[in-house]
Amino acid sequence: VTLAIGVDVGGTKVLAAAVDTTDPTTILVSHRVPTPTRGPEIAAALVDAARHVLDEVAAKGLGPVAGVGVGLPGLVDLDGMLRAAPNLHGGVGAPIRGPLSDALGLPVVVDNDANCAAWAEVVAGAGRGASHVLLVTLGTGIGGGFVIDGRLHHGAHGFAGEPGHMVVDRAGPLCPCGRHGCWERYASGNGLGRLAREAAARGDAPGLAALAGGDAEAIRGEHVAAAARDADAGALAVFEEFGGWVGLGVANLVNLLDPDLVLVGGGLADVADLFLEHARAAFAGEVMGAADRVPARLEVATLGSDAGAIGAALLAVPAPLPPFAAR
Amino acid sequence: VTLAIGVDVGGTKVLAAAVDTTDPTTILVSHRVPTPTRGPEIAAALVDAARHVLDEVAAKGLGPVAGVGVGLPGLVDLDGMLRAAPNLHGGVGAPIRGPLSDALGLPVVVDNDANCAAWAEVVAGAGRGASHVLLVTLGTGIGGGFVIDGRLHHGAHGFAGEPGHMVVDRAGPLCPCGRHGCWERYASGNGLGRLAREAAARGDAPGLAALAGGDAEAIRGEHVAAAARDADAGALAVFEEFGGWVGLGVANLVNLLDPDLVLVGGGLADVADLFLEHARAAFAGEVMGAADRVPARLEVATLGSDAGAIGAALLAVPAPLPPFAAR
Repeated sequence: VTLAIGVDVGGTKVLAAAVDTTDPTTILVSHRVPTPTRGPEIAAALVDAARHVLDEVAAKGLGPVAGVGVGLPGLVDLDGMLRAAPNLHGGVGAPIRGPLSDALGLPVVVDNDANCAAWAEVVAGAGRGASHVLLVTLGTGIGGGFVIDGRLHHGAHGFAGEPGHMVVDRAGPLCPCGRHGCWERYASGNGLGRLAREAAARGDAPGLAALAGGDAEAIRGEHVAAAARDADAGALAVFEEFGGWVGLGVANLVNLLDPDLVLVGGGLADVADLFLEHARAAFAGEVMGAADRVPARLEVATLGSDAGAIGAALLAVPAPLPPFAAR
Repeated sequence: VTLAIGVDVGGTKVLAAAVDTTDPTTILVSHRVPTPTRGPEIAAALVDAARHVLDEVAAKGLGPVAGVGVGLPGLVDLDGMLRAAPNLHGGVGAPIRGPLSDALGLPVVVDNDANCAAWAEVVAGAGRGASHVLLVTLGTGIGGGFVIDGRLHHGAHGFAGEPGHMVVDRAGPLCPCGRHGCWERYASGNGLGRLAREAAARGDAPGLAALAGGDAEAIRGEHVAAAARDADAGALAVFEEFGGWVGLGVANLVNLLDPDLVLVGGGLADVADLFLEHARAAFAGEVMGAADRVPARLEVATLGSDAGAIGAALLAVPAPLPPFAAR
């Protein structure tokens, strides 16, 4: 038994969780706090959440904690500093690792949140046994974590793994990142809502507009999922189009990186049954040399919204992948 | 001194070259033969070219040859078998490594040609000292070779590194691969010609149509380069547009993989002065978090058309990167 704490920092909440890193899918103790918007308060909130978990671990007699891992939503450099974060501006440049380590008296590692989730899936989730795994997290936006040859891929400066800002449609809509037609404009929750609004504007999805109070401009991804669950034809067609965009981006990634496995995580993984087959069909037709190669598998991540915290905990106690995962 | 032979197989010719792998930028002996179109003849041509070089190495008393590396133009699996090749259909599924090794009595490794070139650039060319390097070869089409953490990245099955078939403009022209708007439709020699034909059709490049005998449909990339050398305004504008497409794809790759360095190789590297600054400007504006991160450098590969053969020879004698290249 080696305990570690993982802290997953989202745009609105912080989840701290203690796990046994030799059997990490069960969260032993957890605690949530809201995410502050300003840098010094962010570090203080992380200390607060982690200390709460540490105290409860001690109170339950669960044994010593070896380290703390933190997942941050944005570009994290190799020193653990947040360098860019669309949904956590206040955390950019704020000291995190030092204050946390000093306050808790434990070693702290900091990484990108989707990198943490990818590592969790490879060690203990849907990626077990594979050594080349790409996780794409489809939520409000798109994040990513790439495991290459059994190791988390950070790149030269720590910023690797941002598939959401791969341009797939240069003539497409403007992205907050400044580019046009980023994959995130299509294959995220925001993208799903936009595809649905366009369908409604064309008159192709009357049920969706009704769900959104009659205002086609108010349609969000959640409405599409709800209508699709009720077998609304317009909503199902939007999910088919959405799946095509997912498959297109996945085919790009497979042409570039040739993984064993691509995992779909994030909030949209909960409705993967509504688009994954469409994504697989698009992907299968689009990958280079499709008829002559071993196809990568496209599957759903299995650790859900706990993946980030579990992976952060695992990264706090560095260990090689179990031998079954070696190539 | 450890000699090895590299054999670079192109769509029209085979180049076999002997190098000292401890000082590989000087080709000691080389020999070219035409590339046959049928599988068994391809293997025979490689044996012929390599044996010619081996004999000349022996005649010159240059010492024993340790192994042979082969670079093939297409998807090469981890067993060295060509699995898909738009410009060498006859080689798909043909035994290469076994016949070559048996005939020459030497160990043989087989890899993708752009992977070979990338490895050459990292060991002995423009990538020296960097451990995360992406080579994109801009020729008739686009190839790629990715060095990640100091190692050539093959992916799970050997097929990694095909940036040319990354869709960047889903509404764009059909690619022979079956997708629409692949990067190769824009940022290759073929793409340059197409951009120029479109400019001429708009009336924006009268000088180009004149160079192509008055027929705008006959404009090729070579005409654009020739006209740009003569300071033709229309041709220079086409190169500016072309550079924008190069930069767009490079920004995608940097968002995904965060290298130290992206190298432009292939035939278009010879005219990099006509588009590289435009590509850098586009890339600098498009990469995620550009203002807050260390930028990757975008440079020209330096080993030219010998890179494939040099890299194949280096791969035949596996050695770690020199220590200066470690991160």
